[in-house]
Amino acid sequence: MSLLDRYRRPIEQGLRSVLRGETQLAEILRYHVGLSAEDVTPSKLGKLIRPGLVLFTAEELGGRIDAALPAAVGLELIHGFSLIHDDVQDRDETRRGRPAVWVRWGIAEAINAGDLMHAIGLRTALDAGAGAARTLAEATAEMIEGQSLDLAFEGRFVTVDEYVAMIDRKTGALFRCAFELGGRCAQVGAEVLGKLAEIGANIGRAFQLQDDLLGIWGDGDTIGKPIGSDVRRKKKSYPVVVAYATASESERERLERIYAAATIAEPDAKWVIALLDRLEVADRTCEAVREYSERASKAVGRVSLSDDGKRELLEMIEHLTRRET
Amino acid sequence: MSLLDRYRRPIEQGLRSVLRGETQLAEILRYHVGLSAEDVTPSKLGKLIRPGLVLFTAEELGGRIDAALPAAVGLELIHGFSLIHDDVQDRDETRRGRPAVWVRWGIAEAINAGDLMHAIGLRTALDAGAGAARTLAEATAEMIEGQSLDLAFEGRFVTVDEYVAMIDRKTGALFRCAFELGGRCAQVGAEVLGKLAEIGANIGRAFQLQDDLLGIWGDGDTIGKPIGSDVRRKKKSYPVVVAYATASESERERLERIYAAATIAEPDAKWVIALLDRLEVADRTCEAVREYSERASKAVGRVSLSDDGKRELLEMIEHLTRRET
Repeated sequence: MSLLDRYRRPIEQGLRSVLRGETQLAEILRYHVGLSAEDVTPSKLGKLIRPGLVLFTAEELGGRIDAALPAAVGLELIHGFSLIHDDVQDRDETRRGRPAVWVRWGIAEAINAGDLMHAIGLRTALDAGAGAARTLAEATAEMIEGQSLDLAFEGRFVTVDEYVAMIDRKTGALFRCAFELGGRCAQVGAEVLGKLAEIGANIGRAFQLQDDLLGIWGDGDTIGKPIGSDVRRKKKSYPVVVAYATASESERERLERIYAAATIAEPDAKWVIALLDRLEVADRTCEAVREYSERASKAVGRVSLSDDGKRELLEMIEHLTRRET
Repeated sequence: MSLLDRYRRPIEQGLRSVLRGETQLAEILRYHVGLSAEDVTPSKLGKLIRPGLVLFTAEELGGRIDAALPAAVGLELIHGFSLIHDDVQDRDETRRGRPAVWVRWGIAEAINAGDLMHAIGLRTALDAGAGAARTLAEATAEMIEGQSLDLAFEGRFVTVDEYVAMIDRKTGALFRCAFELGGRCAQVGAEVLGKLAEIGANIGRAFQLQDDLLGIWGDGDTIGKPIGSDVRRKKKSYPVVVAYATASESERERLERIYAAATIAEPDAKWVIALLDRLEVADRTCEAVREYSERASKAVGRVSLSDDGKRELLEMIEHLTRRET
């Protein structure tokens, strides 16, 4: 049984418990996390990576799962709320192979659903103590700042460093938070918390860049997106940022023209995809994923986990950064 | 000096302190509360009713202002976040006489701004203790459920009781919370908390119904809305709900037809306003405001406040329910 599988059941129970309620909004929240009445199997739940990492870290460092569970569930809810609002902001119509909340219930109610999941997330984390709730609220604020930067980046081409600084917030904040919450619930000191945060920060980078890869070259059958999907959505993800950094003057100008238009024409999309191929940015993105996952693995070596725990965590990092969905 | 004036300065300082930061999003939050660099005077700040009530209640019941301040500031931020998202949901273009956040920065960034203010609000409340943060998070969740109900009511005519149950959540939750937070910071027991909540609940009702009155018959010069504004926006506020409840069969059918259309034609708006006049719903709404403000005042008598405090609070209730903005 893999690391994440082990904690699936308590997390699912925790989510069920805080998302009960008879209102339409409660039903929307259950739908979003994959626990509505129409989801006959629990398979509609996401991967539960972040809450799994909270419980794993807490248990490995001597904490109790039941004490850490509210922090884990709170973190998953914060992640879930960010997805609901992200989909509204990006007008993404599909989430985990199903219609996004805003597609089914409209934008106004999707904003409410995200807001409610946010409030319940922070309230739930309070059951793991004020320190856990503070850690989660701070990570939430940082994630939102990252989301705002990401939006601002739509208006210009940024450097690779700026991009990485953005994903450190948008994606990294909650991964760091997962390890910090786990450590906090096991009552480790500041030094260990710092090391844990380093694992999370590097997993976050590797995870996001792998996501960026899949967004362009992912297998449509597996993740429900055609090749070049993120190019057609004009997402300036890591591969595009790297391409811009290495392109010729005239290619840059063409990229700027293409991305400044309201929508991308198919010949332009094809040209961008061909440029990415020619500049070998897929390989360079893979290398970056590998680099960050190696850094994460090294950071794992600096924390005193059990041998089994270390092996499991390294396997999970390997798995996350090779995943195809 | 009135009750609210007395606490204005510490609340303003508290808001400034938690809303500092160099990012665009931080600047948007300052703009929204009226503390951006372009607001040369502090007069752009709102009335600060809710945080003022927190500090007043805490001080009256033997608590310390500085201990209660984070709860007060957190509550104001939660109120502020709800306004940012409300304006997006209702496409309201003006807030406190200035362009709404979404008008200036777009819908996506307005969603981020609200999300960030929400996270900062709950994080700030943690400085007043885990109990205060929990009270605030629960009130936040309740307010959002009320907002969702309000949206759902757009699709049908509800009874007066349903409407009042909705505003008890949408508006009442934060007013109750203000008194509860004040009581909590003064460490009063459950019985006093219950009495405090009753004051807040009735102020919330009176406040919202007064708002509903102003939304239709408010002085355009004072609050920036023309007569009948809420009718033209097809808001089914209390006066319309009362009118529907007392209208004839044929009037009801016409109301249903008018409110089912995407927009309201000017002759229809005039007919609705004339119907409201003929059914004397303005008077009936005023009576309801008076009733709830009397209930609030009676509830004030059941809590042991100082004589001065009692007088100030009664004056404030009187003032709120006679306000013209």
